[in-house]
Amino acid sequence: MSLTYGVDVGATSVKAAAVTPDGRIVAEAHLETPVDSSDTVARAVEESVAAVRAKAPGGVSVGVGTPGWTSADRRRVVYSPNLPWRDEPLADRLETVIGLPVVLENDANAAAWAEFRFGGARSANSMVALTFGSGVGSAIVVGGTLLRGAHGCAGEIGHCVIVTGGLPCACGRTGCMENYGSGRSLDRDTVGALGTGVSLHEGAVRGDQRARSIYREFGQRVGRGLANVCLTVDPELVVIGGGVSDAFEWFSEAMRIALRDELGPHWAGIAPDIVAAELGAAAGRVGAADLARHAPHLT
Amino acid sequence: MSLTYGVDVGATSVKAAAVTPDGRIVAEAHLETPVDSSDTVARAVEESVAAVRAKAPGGVSVGVGTPGWTSADRRRVVYSPNLPWRDEPLADRLETVIGLPVVLENDANAAAWAEFRFGGARSANSMVALTFGSGVGSAIVVGGTLLRGAHGCAGEIGHCVIVTGGLPCACGRTGCMENYGSGRSLDRDTVGALGTGVSLHEGAVRGDQRARSIYREFGQRVGRGLANVCLTVDPELVVIGGGVSDAFEWFSEAMRIALRDELGPHWAGIAPDIVAAELGAAAGRVGAADLARHAPHLT
Repeated sequence: MSLTYGVDVGATSVKAAAVTPDGRIVAEAHLETPVDSSDTVARAVEESVAAVRAKAPGGVSVGVGTPGWTSADRRRVVYSPNLPWRDEPLADRLETVIGLPVVLENDANAAAWAEFRFGGARSANSMVALTFGSGVGSAIVVGGTLLRGAHGCAGEIGHCVIVTGGLPCACGRTGCMENYGSGRSLDRDTVGALGTGVSLHEGAVRGDQRARSIYREFGQRVGRGLANVCLTVDPELVVIGGGVSDAFEWFSEAMRIALRDELGPHWAGIAPDIVAAELGAAAGRVGAADLARHAPHLT
Repeated sequence: MSLTYGVDVGATSVKAAAVTPDGRIVAEAHLETPVDSSDTVARAVEESVAAVRAKAPGGVSVGVGTPGWTSADRRRVVYSPNLPWRDEPLADRLETVIGLPVVLENDANAAAWAEFRFGGARSANSMVALTFGSGVGSAIVVGGTLLRGAHGCAGEIGHCVIVTGGLPCACGRTGCMENYGSGRSLDRDTVGALGTGVSLHEGAVRGDQRARSIYREFGQRVGRGLANVCLTVDPELVVIGGGVSDAFEWFSEAMRIALRDELGPHWAGIAPDIVAAELGAAAGRVGAADLARHAPHLT
């Protein structure tokens, strides 16, 4: 049973895991991330791998999920919004220090890959994964492969416009999905409808109809926005993860109905189902480890 | 030098060609299509292959491009708006009559495949192809493969919404690209700005600034609309074909600028270039023949 190591690099911590071919974690190591320089972050990755390797030796390769833009050849971090990496040849550096083959991946892609292989989409051949955190991460799998695009930039669904001339987005466009279907947009709606300091989730659990209605509208907006993505890639399944997916039961049915309505009668019977992610926060490191196992140039 | 046969099934005619591995047509046959029944259309396909086979014998397989929805396994025509096929097992029938392996493909996909292999995108690894006729056909190639989707419905870019709450479309949605970037939309703009019975193309050739401006606005609308597709699949190249591409010089620069503007600074340097299709009306049969050559189950 060969192990691979998966690392999830976050804005505040680095989490490494030793993972089996069937996606089970057999050892873990967590480190705080000092984000003062690219060097200290890279060193935290190296230390996390050394720590998990000491607990579970014999791993054959390393996958590293990082926020931001990974080059199409998966050797460099081109740009990361929250980490000090700019066109950083991270895979080269890590391979020299660790002594194992390394593959990089965008963190949302890595988490989605875990859901595709072992989680909510394990029985599907294609999927769109949306991760609703404060923003919207996304990834697409077609033909059993992550869709990376010509420059590693495919799957940026959170910045597809779903409302022409809508709210301005940090990316420079207006009306992006991220402004209508994210943790931030839910916070905005909650403050507007329920006031500050109120927990939307607790309200929905309690049965507060205004809270339930905010989640329903969230589901409707995202569902309508997903129609363009479906018309473009025709996925078998949509998988919803991230913190907001804790409220899956409150928005999923509205999302399904809105997507079917928007796709219309031509898509009757073939609109993708929408399911919840199953692997939670471990998905990033499990997916990174599995991508290292299946990287063509590492086998 | 092995030949394959490619057939392009249109609403009014069936065109067959014998095609070499490098995409050259060595023989052709054209038949009018009697659209009175699924049987007569299928028979026209059979006769066109028999005719071109008599001129260029020895072909090893047949690709058939048809309008409408082809099943993901490329054996059946699920639905065709202009032909009397409803869940028609066309490949089975044709194989029995013709005695060669047959693969079906959506006609826009087949034409796009020819541009990818031998035309405007022959040096690219991924592309989005748009065919501007009276409507908008489209196809996507990623990783050297046509993106078909879970049900054969991927690449329906003409029915992606580019104007929220915009003009109603025949598909049931509102604001689809087809209503803003197609031959029909140009006709509407021409009648509005120049009156009926006026040739927009001749006006642009003559230097009429109103005609040039209609093409520029067309380019701007489509360019902006393409941004969502780029964010989703990150293609290396966009290839523009169809009748409207005769006016490529009048709209292409506006399209490039609008796409780059809409993608914004994060995509500086990686927004795909936009080029004209090169193979004209022959693309459909050349692409169908090449798809038959490269179909995994036919080799």
